[in-house]
Amino acid sequence: MPRRVDHDQRRRQITDACRRVVARDGLEAATFQAVAAESGVSVRLVQYYFGNKHGLLVATHRAVIEGSAARFGVGEPGGVAGDAAAPMPPPRAVLRAVLAALLPLDGARRADAVVLAAFHAAALTNEAVTSEDLRGAPRALVDLVAGQVLRARGDGGGTGPGSGPGSGADDPARLDAELVLASAAGLTQGILAGYVDGETALAVVDRLLDHVVGHAR
Amino acid sequence: MPRRVDHDQRRRQITDACRRVVARDGLEAATFQAVAAESGVSVRLVQYYFGNKHGLLVATHRAVIEGSAARFGVGEPGGVAGDAAAPMPPPRAVLRAVLAALLPLDGARRADAVVLAAFHAAALTNEAVTSEDLRGAPRALVDLVAGQVLRARGDGGGTGPGSGPGSGADDPARLDAELVLASAAGLTQGILAGYVDGETALAVVDRLLDHVVGHAR
Repeated sequence: MPRRVDHDQRRRQITDACRRVVARDGLEAATFQAVAAESGVSVRLVQYYFGNKHGLLVATHRAVIEGSAARFGVGEPGGVAGDAAAPMPPPRAVLRAVLAALLPLDGARRADAVVLAAFHAAALTNEAVTSEDLRGAPRALVDLVAGQVLRARGDGGGTGPGSGPGSGADDPARLDAELVLASAAGLTQGILAGYVDGETALAVVDRLLDHVVGHAR
Repeated sequence: MPRRVDHDQRRRQITDACRRVVARDGLEAATFQAVAAESGVSVRLVQYYFGNKHGLLVATHRAVIEGSAARFGVGEPGGVAGDAAAPMPPPRAVLRAVLAALLPLDGARRADAVVLAAFHAAALTNEAVTSEDLRGAPRALVDLVAGQVLRARGDGGGTGPGSGPGSGADDPARLDAELVLASAAGLTQGILAGYVDGETALAVVDRLLDHVVGHAR
């Protein structure tokens, strides 16, 4: 009789292996065989948990995004978007922490960014995943960033329901939030490709925050 | 005896075909066979002009970049970075034109952006090209944009030798130029993935230009 296993942990073990395979060899390399070998489980078990390659890839993408979110404490007590009981740092500090966490300035974040770039490219030519599969996380980030931009301007108290930013395309805080995240995505691309070094990227982030929230806060 | 052909035109015919294959099916699909079939020439001819797959891909990448540059007239008389004889529009107008030209707001630019994203992702996992193969164009763009930012501030007259921006990582004009291009890259990624629509992207560009060059010019 098989012993009881923690299914979440098993799924995590497999998506972690898939992430490593994609970071090392690209999305094309992430076959059931390769991922099973990397994670030390059977092909049958990978199939049991994820059904098909599409299911495995979408789960891996979600795991990478959740890992990024966890790095800057979204949804965690004391995190930058945590509960109201924990005092929140000034908005500029929050935004800088979020941006620094998003940039691939160390090995783990670099590996994550490579994996996300591979998913992005694959979705564009509809190889194994679609853009539809990859939505969600970016919108949540825009809300988080827009909330901090509003806080810096004294226009809003937080990111809770009712206090968040508007969604209009001409809302300055939302446009600034889109700008902040577009910049982070572009800097990530530049760092990965070696066009921009980490020091310059952080100087650009500070310059951006000068523009968006000013020096005051 | 074979009739004389225009070698540049032939090479262009093949890189155009390669670009279409990559835009449609991804970089993995760009085999000599597929590109020869797409361009209506023999595999032997593709091999004659490009040697190996790496040579073909690097030439295709360069052709896409050159096509983008041609769209906003870099290096052309009357273009945004053309000769001094042609009057140059105000810096804000130049920057907006460059950014609008970079964003994938129509089918041709979208196809180019998909191809560049495929190259970017491939370079990160060292599949068929390296980041080293893809450098050059981004640095030239930073110089162009930084020159316009300086013009807007009345600190410099153009992009010629001696009048260009400094290269220090703490030079505000250069940081703004990096910010502009990182934003363009990030917005491109967002448009391609369907996170951001074209109208919002242009509103973000205008917001960015408000920050970087102000309303005045």
